[in-house]
Amino acid sequence: MSTLQNDTFLKALMRQPTDYTPVWMMRQAGRYLPEYRQSRKNAGSFLQLCKNADFATEVTMQPLDRYPLLDAAILFSDILTVPDAMGLGLYFEEGEGPKFERTLQLEADIKKLAVPDMSKLQYVFDAVSQIRKTLNGRLPLIGFTGSPWTLATYMVEGKGKTDFLTIKKMAYARPDLLHHILDTTAQTVIQYLNAQIAAGAQAVMIFDSWGGALSHDAYKEFSLNYMQKIVNGLTKTNDGRVVPSVVFTKGGGLWLEAQAAIGADALGLDWTVDIGSARQRVGAQVALQGNLDPAILLSTPEAIEKEVVKVLQSYGHGHGHVFNLGHGITQLTPPENAAAMLDAVRTHSRQYHQ
Amino acid sequence: MSTLQNDTFLKALMRQPTDYTPVWMMRQAGRYLPEYRQSRKNAGSFLQLCKNADFATEVTMQPLDRYPLLDAAILFSDILTVPDAMGLGLYFEEGEGPKFERTLQLEADIKKLAVPDMSKLQYVFDAVSQIRKTLNGRLPLIGFTGSPWTLATYMVEGKGKTDFLTIKKMAYARPDLLHHILDTTAQTVIQYLNAQIAAGAQAVMIFDSWGGALSHDAYKEFSLNYMQKIVNGLTKTNDGRVVPSVVFTKGGGLWLEAQAAIGADALGLDWTVDIGSARQRVGAQVALQGNLDPAILLSTPEAIEKEVVKVLQSYGHGHGHVFNLGHGITQLTPPENAAAMLDAVRTHSRQYHQ
Repeated sequence: MSTLQNDTFLKALMRQPTDYTPVWMMRQAGRYLPEYRQSRKNAGSFLQLCKNADFATEVTMQPLDRYPLLDAAILFSDILTVPDAMGLGLYFEEGEGPKFERTLQLEADIKKLAVPDMSKLQYVFDAVSQIRKTLNGRLPLIGFTGSPWTLATYMVEGKGKTDFLTIKKMAYARPDLLHHILDTTAQTVIQYLNAQIAAGAQAVMIFDSWGGALSHDAYKEFSLNYMQKIVNGLTKTNDGRVVPSVVFTKGGGLWLEAQAAIGADALGLDWTVDIGSARQRVGAQVALQGNLDPAILLSTPEAIEKEVVKVLQSYGHGHGHVFNLGHGITQLTPPENAAAMLDAVRTHSRQYHQ
Repeated sequence: MSTLQNDTFLKALMRQPTDYTPVWMMRQAGRYLPEYRQSRKNAGSFLQLCKNADFATEVTMQPLDRYPLLDAAILFSDILTVPDAMGLGLYFEEGEGPKFERTLQLEADIKKLAVPDMSKLQYVFDAVSQIRKTLNGRLPLIGFTGSPWTLATYMVEGKGKTDFLTIKKMAYARPDLLHHILDTTAQTVIQYLNAQIAAGAQAVMIFDSWGGALSHDAYKEFSLNYMQKIVNGLTKTNDGRVVPSVVFTKGGGLWLEAQAAIGADALGLDWTVDIGSARQRVGAQVALQGNLDPAILLSTPEAIEKEVVKVLQSYGHGHGHVFNLGHGITQLTPPENAAAMLDAVRTHSRQYHQ
């Protein structure tokens, strides 16, 4: 493997000194970029972008080529590759979110759920290898997964962005069934992330997109516990380097103390949290990643710079901050506004690292 | 006015001693009740239920007749009566949420926005009077409104449950325009709630359904500030009684300290917050209302009782707690499960008031 030329991101995740605050953007390879839209057209579908290593590499590299100030690459893929490999039949309808052909609602179906053979996800590991080769040490590569709770919401409800009533009914009426789903998914995810690491992922992130829909108690029981199992099961070093992990529960700002205790290196924050208060609450246990509202990128370069400065000021002096949006960049973002954000982070963050 | 026979709810809002924890349910007059579905059929539409005082009274009374353990009535209406009166043209399409014929996005349209004549909302005040007459002192009646931020999201986006990108773009690029909308709406809401109080509402609640979509800073600037203006402008006593106020930001659990400081008597909590921690954070400044996840009512009477006990235990001994769901009851709730919740609250709460 070639030498890593920019390890600012990895150092920040481990709260080691850096010269500036590193930055990347959730969903940085995405529909706001015209070159991405072209690749998607060429591939024919979103799933083909994910399942073909050439396309996945192409779109992973696009934001890096456009924005020299990015400090990390992230594997282009989807969290739903895992339930797809578990046999649920992922598909997309144009203009709608992802859906599954089968759902897990009946006891008999749930009891049949098993950890799939990782060969079904070989296309993901192939993409990781090819991206690493293409990066050639330019930037570190992030691998990722959905959290077991988040993946289970799709598996039980059959789609995302629901009211979660079917899965919550299961959580309260038949917690044994839900725990079986979550446990099987957690075991799958451990193998999945470790195979990504073996293929070359230099950091890993667990996206808990729907943990914030749970009550404080239920969050610990049905989401955080399983993320802890995953963190415990992760390969800690590869190729002579620590592989840091980031846990991100959208809407989970009330539970940062509990999140900080599961052993991950960093926590992702959405924009509802004041990052300075978050830092006070979790102390020196973890690095923090976030947390500009992606909607701000729809405004003006002046407003963007002002809001970037507020986040940097709020985190304050010292290391352990990875700048990011509080959620994925929206497809309506003018690409030059993303550049304005990256510029502002680099310009204004150096003073906090002196 | 007839003597109030059960003032447990009003006392709890003012943190005065009560024998048990009073309870009501957000959206207690709603689609989970077969008698409500029949009334709606008779009325022809949801809006007709709101705009006809006989129908509004009929459905307001339905849960009270079914559940003798409820401690408050709430006016049957909709938060969108206000933007409708402000000229935006509210309508409902079957199977979809509320929509508006016109939206506020152009500067010229926004600058024309004005406080409407309250005569346009006379049907609401008529409903309040008629419900009070029908209640005949049996239970106190709650009036309500949406928060200016929440109402503005509908006025700018044209519908609810959006990604809020249009209004957030305005918030960051043209805050002056958004402040004009919010200020005009806040002035309208003050008149609206005071007219509800004059007509007989004995407590008022401000629903900030979408405040949780904002960043911590933006929440204070665009939502909380305007709720504070409203609280400052409210009639404090009527007919010899204090008229307590409740402020509820769904998804606002991170900001309870700021909410507690605006002068309302109570805060509503959704289920993501541990009510015991919330009590520690806001001390004796305000009463707390909440916060069972409404999804729990889809499970079993045994699970419901267990979860009710957890909420009561978490709040602990002493007064100042109004039991409620953390959001509106879902239409899928079996009516007998709501009864199980009410029974559990009455049975298990007395010990905390001794």
